[in-house]
Amino acid sequence: MSSINLAIVGVGKIVRDQHLPAVAANADYRLVAAASRNGKVDGIANFGTIEEMLEAVPEVEAVSLCMPPQYRYAAAVKALAAGKHVFLEKPPGATLSEVEDLAAQAKERGVSLFASWHSRHAPAVEAARAFLAGTTVRSMRVTWKEDVRHWHPGQAWIWEAGGLGVFDPGINALSIVTRILPRAVFATEATLEFPENRAAPIAAAIRFTDAEGLDLQAEFDWRQTGPQSWDIEAETDAGSMLLSHGGSRLAVNGEVVHAEPEQEYPELYRHFARLIRAGGSDVDLAPLRHVADAFMLGRRVVVEPFHD
Amino acid sequence: MSSINLAIVGVGKIVRDQHLPAVAANADYRLVAAASRNGKVDGIANFGTIEEMLEAVPEVEAVSLCMPPQYRYAAAVKALAAGKHVFLEKPPGATLSEVEDLAAQAKERGVSLFASWHSRHAPAVEAARAFLAGTTVRSMRVTWKEDVRHWHPGQAWIWEAGGLGVFDPGINALSIVTRILPRAVFATEATLEFPENRAAPIAAAIRFTDAEGLDLQAEFDWRQTGPQSWDIEAETDAGSMLLSHGGSRLAVNGEVVHAEPEQEYPELYRHFARLIRAGGSDVDLAPLRHVADAFMLGRRVVVEPFHD
Repeated sequence: MSSINLAIVGVGKIVRDQHLPAVAANADYRLVAAASRNGKVDGIANFGTIEEMLEAVPEVEAVSLCMPPQYRYAAAVKALAAGKHVFLEKPPGATLSEVEDLAAQAKERGVSLFASWHSRHAPAVEAARAFLAGTTVRSMRVTWKEDVRHWHPGQAWIWEAGGLGVFDPGINALSIVTRILPRAVFATEATLEFPENRAAPIAAAIRFTDAEGLDLQAEFDWRQTGPQSWDIEAETDAGSMLLSHGGSRLAVNGEVVHAEPEQEYPELYRHFARLIRAGGSDVDLAPLRHVADAFMLGRRVVVEPFHD
Repeated sequence: MSSINLAIVGVGKIVRDQHLPAVAANADYRLVAAASRNGKVDGIANFGTIEEMLEAVPEVEAVSLCMPPQYRYAAAVKALAAGKHVFLEKPPGATLSEVEDLAAQAKERGVSLFASWHSRHAPAVEAARAFLAGTTVRSMRVTWKEDVRHWHPGQAWIWEAGGLGVFDPGINALSIVTRILPRAVFATEATLEFPENRAAPIAAAIRFTDAEGLDLQAEFDWRQTGPQSWDIEAETDAGSMLLSHGGSRLAVNGEVVHAEPEQEYPELYRHFARLIRAGGSDVDLAPLRHVADAFMLGRRVVVEPFHD
């Protein structure tokens, strides 16, 4: 099978750390160009804008859009209009409505759109899904607590309106939860904590339920120093489950049943190649929809100022 | 054609003012029961809960759910599980996710679900849609300003978290805008004003655009005394359009081309009957999605306290 001519747009830290190694190790792709306001990729053609790139390198077949979400829609429209397949980093956009529109445009053009959720491809997620599929889930606790100063030092934009705040990591948890639970859930109550001097939340607590009355509670916090927590625990009629370390380790009734090295971005690119070969799209907005629901439903509490 | 045995759940002001007259005037329906914690409908069987009603009156074929949105999901699940067609008052739920789940359940059960938007059935809405379909829309201004003290005197619940605040009327405007515009739009910027002593916004300003760069601005305000404004103006290559009076009057280039008496609820019930006869559903979440997007994207501003 011939390889897919890929271009990457928005060359920043996540591209260097994850996208470039994953693409280099995957024979499905040939990286032919990059476009970015600042970053460059060695050894290929680089451009300042996606327009210039699409014009100069017509052999591009697919593009990965890795710029901040508020600039993603405009780039995606240009790529789709040029007949390219599109990979969207997470979150897929700044609003649900714009991503719905992109999905409609991709369908109309007959190209593949992939709204990626990297945490869904953490090693033990499918094993957790398989375990829960055979059980009745009584309750679930999601604890996603990390130190924003460590992970986003001095990044002012994450605190602006339209930045998701603590939902930027929290949406990773939601992307796993919506994959592993056998039934759809929805928020019934939420509390969002906004630092006095910031426009985005630093912590959130959300209660969810489902048609059968599941008790699901999620706690997201960006103020955790020391050990970081990325855990999903469930109580079921077949015992307890702990999916920990961001989805990379699964324990059932206290015994580790699945632990493998992390392969999230290699998996994402394998999945994108399969979508392109099959002529399909994968645009599941459930994680972003839960975030929007929490903002709409949530009680806002002002907490102490946050300084980097 | 035999009439549809209908029941109404949640008997309050909107049911007395709108639902009962619309149903009484429509030969498609036979109103056979009602369920409500407080209200009653004369001349039919009344129950305290939807469960009791479904149990006691199995000949019910369709139910209209008119209780506050946060109680609608649980009632809808029971009605759908009993194989009934379901009419949801607006907004269709407290979250997008729960309504998505209802839509999936209705599909699975093979019954009709109608997420109603009464303002879409205002008399001049289809004429505005037809006018805009033939034009290039350059800009649109949506002005939806009313006096909350007049329309919701002393209703504390509208100000609680999860109440939509000024989006409760604003969503009516959005239901019209999303019907008449030829292309999908999405919010790019929003400001939400929260009274210091309330958990829901009293005013909101939202900028939208579309794939072609449309300039769309919406202003919602609950502090308007004197004349009330429910207007949608558009500038197009075929001239200007003003859809005023909540969608009941259309003027093109200053000349009134459409003005008819309001028939919103009679239209809703005709539409619901057509859906049931055809075995279809109508669940367009775009208006609620735009509200959730505005909450997620919006800058929050605290304004002076609101007292009834």
